[in-house]
Amino acid sequence: MRFELEEAIAVLARTPEALRAMLAGVPAGWARGDEGSGTWSPYAVIGHLIHGEKTDWIPRARIILEQGPARPFNPFDREAMLREPQDRSLEALLDEFERRRGESLATLRRWKLTPAHLARRGTHPALGSVTLAQLLAAWVVHDLDHVTQVARVMAKQYTEAVGPWRAYLSVLDDRPEPGAKS
Amino acid sequence: MRFELEEAIAVLARTPEALRAMLAGVPAGWARGDEGSGTWSPYAVIGHLIHGEKTDWIPRARIILEQGPARPFNPFDREAMLREPQDRSLEALLDEFERRRGESLATLRRWKLTPAHLARRGTHPALGSVTLAQLLAAWVVHDLDHVTQVARVMAKQYTEAVGPWRAYLSVLDDRPEPGAKS
Repeated sequence: MRFELEEAIAVLARTPEALRAMLAGVPAGWARGDEGSGTWSPYAVIGHLIHGEKTDWIPRARIILEQGPARPFNPFDREAMLREPQDRSLEALLDEFERRRGESLATLRRWKLTPAHLARRGTHPALGSVTLAQLLAAWVVHDLDHVTQVARVMAKQYTEAVGPWRAYLSVLDDRPEPGAKS
Repeated sequence: MRFELEEAIAVLARTPEALRAMLAGVPAGWARGDEGSGTWSPYAVIGHLIHGEKTDWIPRARIILEQGPARPFNPFDREAMLREPQDRSLEALLDEFERRRGESLATLRRWKLTPAHLARRGTHPALGSVTLAQLLAAWVVHDLDHVTQVARVMAKQYTEAVGPWRAYLSVLDDRPEPGAKS
């Protein structure tokens, strides 16, 4: 599919609700379980997504629009959430993510981006020259990557419980990952 | 995690809402796109889940409870949905899945399963001897496997659109799969 701003927004707007449906009120084993040392729980993923709203996607878009390619993006700290207190409830994190995502999309709509805007270029600190459209498409895929991660991490809590079905449920063999880079 | 009936139900009950949040009303490219020849779109996944409610999970549990291991489960037709008319709306499929899942969980609760029930055995046509607890755990993991699939298939529609970010978004390199077996 070609990138279309409205189609991208349609997916970005759904992510908080999808994660809320998967996670709000689930027993702690599902929310805090991970895939082993160095990997993230669903709780950590929501914290990471909140940091993305604060420091990654819209701030980078703003750099492209206001400063252009001469000003590289700040590197994104993917693990910032791991250094925060872990005592906030998962529901509080889901609320904050939904609120911040709503603000991000309101900003995006307020910009009334044209095809010329979407073709503007910025400089990723590692990936080099990218367009605004590529940044926004990466935001969508990054969301979906973390949805797969949450579902995979939850599934793995039952790796032993499924017994012989393990041979049929390939998600249980998917590699553990700390989460997509941006 | 050990299998706990109430914790399993907590996840099974969420799947229709999670998939609705991800898919209801999305543009057709997201709903009907797949990962290439022989793979499933999100639309196909919802059809598959409906067939699972009708002929797979609760019917197999009933065989264990009423007939025991002497009566093997019927093989499950994973691709039944591909031979049906494809003109029902995705929203109609999401509604049907939600309704049937609600009925399935009502049946499950009505059985008031004890640990002794959960230890009862049945015979999978390929995997051999399994317990009722393993069947119910596999149902949970099967749901989550398909949630990962829906998010992965959606993400892949933007494989080109993300440009240089492709190197960072590992979900785009995850293998295509027609869907978990049961």
